[in-house]
Amino acid sequence: MMKRIILILSLIVCSSLYTGHSLCAQSLQSPDGRFTMQFALNDKGRPSYRLTLDGKEVIGKSGLGLELKKEQADRQETFDNSQHTEASSIDRKADLMTGFTIMSVDKGTFDETWEPVWGEEKEIRNHYNEMTVRLHQARNERDIIIRFRLFNDGLGFRYEFPEQKNLTYFVIKEEHSQFVMTGDHRAWWIPGDYDTQEYSYTESRLSEIRSKLPAAVTPNASQTPVGGACVQTALMMKSDDGLYINLHEAACIDYPTMHLDYTEGTKVFESWLTPDARGDKGYMQTPCQSPWRTIIVGRSGADILASRMTLNLNEPCKIEDTSWIKPTKYVGVWWEMITGRSQWAYTDDVNSVKLGETDYNKVKPNGKHAANTAHVKEYIDFAAQHGFDAVLVEGWNQGWEDWFGHEKDYVFDFVTPYADFDVKAIREYAALKGVKMMMHHETSSSVRNYERHLDQAYQFMVDNGYPSVKSGYVGNIVPRGEHHYGQWLNNHYLYCITKAADYHIMVNAHEAVRPTGICRTYPNMIGNESARGTEYESFGGNNVEHTTILPFTRLIGGPMDYTPGIFEMDCSKLSPTNTSRVRSTLARQLALYVTLYSPLQMAADLPENYNRFMDAFQFIKDVPVDWQRSIYLEAEPGQVVTIARQDKHSQDWYVGSTVGAGGHDTEFVLSFLEPGKKYEATIYQDGKDADWEKNPQSYSITKKKVTAKTKLKLHSASGGGFAVRLKIED
Amino acid sequence: MMKRIILILSLIVCSSLYTGHSLCAQSLQSPDGRFTMQFALNDKGRPSYRLTLDGKEVIGKSGLGLELKKEQADRQETFDNSQHTEASSIDRKADLMTGFTIMSVDKGTFDETWEPVWGEEKEIRNHYNEMTVRLHQARNERDIIIRFRLFNDGLGFRYEFPEQKNLTYFVIKEEHSQFVMTGDHRAWWIPGDYDTQEYSYTESRLSEIRSKLPAAVTPNASQTPVGGACVQTALMMKSDDGLYINLHEAACIDYPTMHLDYTEGTKVFESWLTPDARGDKGYMQTPCQSPWRTIIVGRSGADILASRMTLNLNEPCKIEDTSWIKPTKYVGVWWEMITGRSQWAYTDDVNSVKLGETDYNKVKPNGKHAANTAHVKEYIDFAAQHGFDAVLVEGWNQGWEDWFGHEKDYVFDFVTPYADFDVKAIREYAALKGVKMMMHHETSSSVRNYERHLDQAYQFMVDNGYPSVKSGYVGNIVPRGEHHYGQWLNNHYLYCITKAADYHIMVNAHEAVRPTGICRTYPNMIGNESARGTEYESFGGNNVEHTTILPFTRLIGGPMDYTPGIFEMDCSKLSPTNTSRVRSTLARQLALYVTLYSPLQMAADLPENYNRFMDAFQFIKDVPVDWQRSIYLEAEPGQVVTIARQDKHSQDWYVGSTVGAGGHDTEFVLSFLEPGKKYEATIYQDGKDADWEKNPQSYSITKKKVTAKTKLKLHSASGGGFAVRLKIED
Repeated sequence: MMKRIILILSLIVCSSLYTGHSLCAQSLQSPDGRFTMQFALNDKGRPSYRLTLDGKEVIGKSGLGLELKKEQADRQETFDNSQHTEASSIDRKADLMTGFTIMSVDKGTFDETWEPVWGEEKEIRNHYNEMTVRLHQARNERDIIIRFRLFNDGLGFRYEFPEQKNLTYFVIKEEHSQFVMTGDHRAWWIPGDYDTQEYSYTESRLSEIRSKLPAAVTPNASQTPVGGACVQTALMMKSDDGLYINLHEAACIDYPTMHLDYTEGTKVFESWLTPDARGDKGYMQTPCQSPWRTIIVGRSGADILASRMTLNLNEPCKIEDTSWIKPTKYVGVWWEMITGRSQWAYTDDVNSVKLGETDYNKVKPNGKHAANTAHVKEYIDFAAQHGFDAVLVEGWNQGWEDWFGHEKDYVFDFVTPYADFDVKAIREYAALKGVKMMMHHETSSSVRNYERHLDQAYQFMVDNGYPSVKSGYVGNIVPRGEHHYGQWLNNHYLYCITKAADYHIMVNAHEAVRPTGICRTYPNMIGNESARGTEYESFGGNNVEHTTILPFTRLIGGPMDYTPGIFEMDCSKLSPTNTSRVRSTLARQLALYVTLYSPLQMAADLPENYNRFMDAFQFIKDVPVDWQRSIYLEAEPGQVVTIARQDKHSQDWYVGSTVGAGGHDTEFVLSFLEPGKKYEATIYQDGKDADWEKNPQSYSITKKKVTAKTKLKLHSASGGGFAVRLKIED
Repeated sequence: MMKRIILILSLIVCSSLYTGHSLCAQSLQSPDGRFTMQFALNDKGRPSYRLTLDGKEVIGKSGLGLELKKEQADRQETFDNSQHTEASSIDRKADLMTGFTIMSVDKGTFDETWEPVWGEEKEIRNHYNEMTVRLHQARNERDIIIRFRLFNDGLGFRYEFPEQKNLTYFVIKEEHSQFVMTGDHRAWWIPGDYDTQEYSYTESRLSEIRSKLPAAVTPNASQTPVGGACVQTALMMKSDDGLYINLHEAACIDYPTMHLDYTEGTKVFESWLTPDARGDKGYMQTPCQSPWRTIIVGRSGADILASRMTLNLNEPCKIEDTSWIKPTKYVGVWWEMITGRSQWAYTDDVNSVKLGETDYNKVKPNGKHAANTAHVKEYIDFAAQHGFDAVLVEGWNQGWEDWFGHEKDYVFDFVTPYADFDVKAIREYAALKGVKMMMHHETSSSVRNYERHLDQAYQFMVDNGYPSVKSGYVGNIVPRGEHHYGQWLNNHYLYCITKAADYHIMVNAHEAVRPTGICRTYPNMIGNESARGTEYESFGGNNVEHTTILPFTRLIGGPMDYTPGIFEMDCSKLSPTNTSRVRSTLARQLALYVTLYSPLQMAADLPENYNRFMDAFQFIKDVPVDWQRSIYLEAEPGQVVTIARQDKHSQDWYVGSTVGAGGHDTEFVLSFLEPGKKYEATIYQDGKDADWEKNPQSYSITKKKVTAKTKLKLHSASGGGFAVRLKIED
C-alpha cells in the first residue's frame, strides 16, 4: 500500500489577538490551493464559515452551532448519602451557538493512499488540509471544537465535544449548521422525511422547493414527511455558472440523520435532525462528535462522482480479517413476488399469525408460494450454470401472512422455515452446485424483536451456508414513535453490522437509513437500498431519468442494491393485473451494472426472461462487481451518466451509460485503455427503434477490435443506454 | 396432587330474550353462595357488573368496556398489486363499550387443588364459579367476551378478544373498567405513577385521596405521577361496617399496568392504564385478553391475606422441570453501600465512563470499593458458617462511576468485572464453601442494552456458579419515553424471566413492575422489589407502620425481596454522615421473615452487626423460606400483622408479628400445633424498654415448652414485633 503522510501542525493561539467583540478570522486552503475556507466569529461570538473556489464564493457566510435541550435536573435516589436530593429545574445552558472565543487554531496536512476492501477504485487518496478550531464559551465554562478538512474536491466539517467538567451528558434540541447558497441553483431533491427515502427526485430551482414539495410526497409503508422546504441529503445542485455542489454527511454514527431545511429569502439551508419518540434530537456523552457535514464541489458533474470525500471522512477499516468479505453477484426468488406472479406467504387461510401458536400444518397452501424447495433449486441451477455467486430467497420463513402494517412486535423469528422450504436439502444442493445462499431477514421494522433473535438468526445462517443477509425495515419502527433515521435506529443498524461481522456475515439492509460512507470502516456493509429501487418499476414505475440522478444523490453515501437487470418490461407478462412498465430499455438495464456502483449486484429478473435474451444476458454474466479504476465520461444529473471502469482482477474495461427522456448521443475516445494494446469491444446498445415505452427490448450487440485511440459514437434511446465490454487480447 | 375438576356448562342464549333496549341481566354465585355477581347491559348496550356479599353490596353497578384509538389507515407499499393504495383516514370504530347485545352466557364450576413450586402453602385450592358472557356489537360486527370468576374470596373478571374478521389488530386508548364504591372507605394507597411504587402508603378516606396525593409524591430516580386522585394497586380498603376490599390485577401479561382513578361524587374507581411513548395504552392482536381485574373481599384482614385469588387467576406452571428452582436465604455486599460505608464504584477518578474505552488500569482505586475479592470471601465465609444459601455482590462490574441519571444507553455489559473482583477465584472459593453466588445486574433501565447482553450475561452466570440474579431498573427507561409499567416493559420483564428459565436462572427484579401472580406460571420469578424496601430505611426511613401495610398491598401480587434483618438501626454507625434511623425494633426485623412472605430472603445487615447479636441472629438462621401452611392471626393494615407458618419440610412452626406506632398486645392460642405434641418455643420479643426510636436493640429471648393448648401473650413495642420458633420435640 502506498502511504504518504505529511503532518504539519501550526498552533495559533487566537485568543491573544481577540479583544472585545472584534472578529477573529482564520482561513484554510485546499492542497491544490483552489478552495479557501474562512472561519470567523461574529460580534455575538457565533462561529461561521465561508467557502470559495478559485476566488468565487460557493457557500456564503454560514453560521454554526447547536441548541441543547433544557432539562430538569435528574431526580436521584441517593446512594451515597442518607437523604434524598430535592428535584430542581436547571437550565443546562442550552446555547452552544454564541458567546464563543477562539482558544486555539491548529492546522495540518494529511495525505494518505489507502486500499478499500472493495470499491470503485483499488486505491483511494485521502488528501486534505485541516484546521481545528477550539472554542471557549466563557459564560458556561466549556469548550467545543470545530474541525474542518478541506480537500481538492470540497469541505468537510464536524463538531467535537471533548470530555470536560461542564459538558458530559447533553441532549441536542437542534443542530444549526448553515449552508448559505449563492444563487437560486437548480437542485435534484426528495422531500425531508424521518422514515423513508423511497421518493422520486424532483428537479427544480431552490426557490421552488416549497411549492413543489407536497406533490413530491408520494405514499410509503412508513413515512413522516417534515414538510415546508425540508429536503434530504445527499442534495445535488448546479449553479447557473456551472458549479456542481453536493451537500451530505459522512460517518453518521450514534447521531440522528440530517435533513436540510431551506429558507428562500436568505438562501440558507440549515441542518434539521431526525427526532426520537420524545422529539429530542441526539443523546450525547463526551468525548463525542457529530457526523461530518460535507460540501463536495466541482466544475463538472464528473467531479462529484469522482469524489471520495465521503469515504475519506470515515474511519479506516475496523475489521481485521476481511478475507470473508466478497463482492457478490446474485439471482433470487424476489421479482416474481414483487410483480405479483407469486407470493411470500404460504397460505391464504390465516389473517392473524402468532408465531408458535398458529399451526401451519393445518392450513391449505395457496399454491403461489415461491420459496419452495423445488423452485429454489431451479434458481440454484440457474446461478450455477451462469456463474452467479449466490441465490437470495424471500418468503422462506413463517409469518408472511401477517407481517405488515400493524407495528407488530413478534413478527418473525428468522429461523423457522415454511414446511415447503427444506433448509437442509437446499443447503446441500447449493453446496453441491458451488453456490452460496443469501438470507432474507424482513424485520418489519420491529427492531426489538430482531435484536432479540439476532444471534440465533446469524448462527442459523452460518450453519446453513448463508454468508450474506438482505435485511428489510418495511413499516413503522417498533419501539413505536422512533424513526428509521433517528439515533436509536442508526445505532441499531450499526449494531447489526458489527454483530454480523462477528459471524463473518455481509449485510445489505433495505429501508434502512441512507449510508454515509460507513462501509469504509465496516466493509461487510456490502449494500443498502434506502432509495427508490427497481421494485418501484413494478409499483407504477420509476421516472425515466431516475438512474441518472441516483449517482449524484443516494450513491454519494455508499453502494445501492438497486437490483437491475429486468429484461421483461411489461409487468403484466408476469402478473396479468400488474399494469406497470419498467421505464427503461433492455440495454440500459445492462448499463446499470456499471453506472450504479455496488459490490453487490443482482440479476433481478426471472431465469425464464434471461433465457429469452441469452446474448444480452452475457453482459451481466461478464460484468465484474469490483473495480480497479473508474472514469466518469459523462455526468449530468437528469440527463446522462456514462462511466468506464476497469475490472479489479484483469485488464478489461467496462463502460455503461444511462440516459433520461429524449435519448442521448455519446462520443468518447477509449483513451483509458492501455496504449498499444488491442481490445475486443462488445457493444450492447439500444436498437435503432428502441424506446423505453414503445420498444424497450430492441437492442443490438456488435463486436469490434479497438485500441486506446478508438473513438466510439453511440446513440441511446429515450430511457435507454449502452454497455460495452472491452476485453484485452492476449 | 389432589385434583378435582367439575365443570358444568349451561348455555343460555340471551339474545333471544333481548328486545329493543331492555336490560338483559345474568347472575352468578360463589361456590359458598355468599357472593353474588350480577351482570347487565344498560339501555345503551354497555355492560356492567355488581357484587354483593351476604346480600350486601360491595361493588355498586360498575360499567365495563374499552375505548380504542382511532387510527389512520396504514400506508401501504403494495406488494401483490402494481399500484399504491392511497392513504386514507378510517375510524376504526373506537367504541368497545356500548351497543352490545348478549350472544351467549356460559356458566361452569371449577375446583382444583394444585401445588406451587414454593409458597405460603403446600397446596392451593382454586375453586370458583365462572360466567362467560359473549357480547356482540352489531354496528361493527364484532364480539368480545367478558369472563367472570367468582371465588369464595371475591371476584375476578377479564376481557377476551376472540380472533374475528373485524377485530384483529387494535390499539387501546383506555380501558374503562369501573369499581363503584359503596361508601367513603378508609384506604391505604400510594400515588398513581407510571414508573415507581417506591412510595410510603397514605391512610385516608377515599374522599381525601385527591387532597393528600400531592404530598404523597416523594422524589424518586424515575417517576411519572399521574396526579389527580389516581392511585396504584393493590389498593387496600376497609368499609365502615368492617368489610375489607382489595383491588388489584392478576396475570398482567403483554398489557400495560393498571392504575385506579377515583371520582369522589360517584365514588367510582376507573381503570387508568400506563401509556407508551406515544400515549397509547396497549397494542393488541386477537386472540388475546386483558389481565384479570380482581376484587378480593373479606370480613377480616386475614381473609385478604389468606386469599390465593391472584395466583389462581394465573396460568399453571409452564416450566416443566422446576427442580433447579430453590427458595434461597442469602447475605450480600449491599447494605454497606446503601448506608454509604462503602461504594459500588471502583474509582473516583472518572466521571464519564465509556465501556471498552475507559481504561480502568490507569485510574486510582478509591479504596471504598466493597466488591473486592477478599471482602467477598469474608461474606462467603459468613454465609457458609451460618448456613446461608447464597451471597449477593453488587458493584462487581465496570461502569458504576457513571451509570445513573443520564438515560445512558450502553451503561453496563454484565460480564466485565473490576480488576479487584476475581470471578474465577470467587467461583472456586464459593464452591469450596458450598455457597452459591447471586449475580447483580443493574440495567439502569437501559433495556435495549440489557437485552443485547442478556444471553451472554446469563451464560456468564451459569459458567461461574450464579443460579440467581438480582436485576435492577433504576432511572428512566431507555427506549426513552417508555415507562416501567407500560406494555413494552411488561413484555421485557417476562422476556427476561422466560429466557432466564432456559438457563435455569432465578430472577429477582428490583424497580420492575409490581407483580400480579405471574410467579405461579414462571416460578423462577423468585422475588421482586417494586415497593419501598429496606433501602429506604437508610434514605430517611420508612414509616413505622410500613410493614403492616405491605402484606395487604404490594404482596397481594407476589413475594417481595424486602431485605429485612437490620440489627444496627443507627445508620451513622456505618457511615458518619448518614443521619437515618431504621424505624423498627430488632425483634421486629426477625418477625419480617415470617410476616413478609418470600421464597427469597436476605439477611441484609453486615456480618459484624450479626456477630454482636448472635443469639437473635439464630432466628434468621433457623427460619425457613418455604411453607406448608400459613395462618393469619392478626391482620389490620397500619396496625398489626401476625402470621403463623409451618415449615414445608418439618413439623415446626414459626410466628411473626409486626406492629405500628404505639405498640400492640397480642394474645393467641397455639391451636395450629399438632394436638398432643410438645414443642419448644423460642420467643424473640421486644424488651420491656424497647422502642423503635429510643431503644430498638432491646430484646429478650425466652424458651418454653408449649402445646396446641398454650396461650401466648406477647407485647410489642412501638414499631416493634416478635418472632417465635416452635420446634416439635421428638
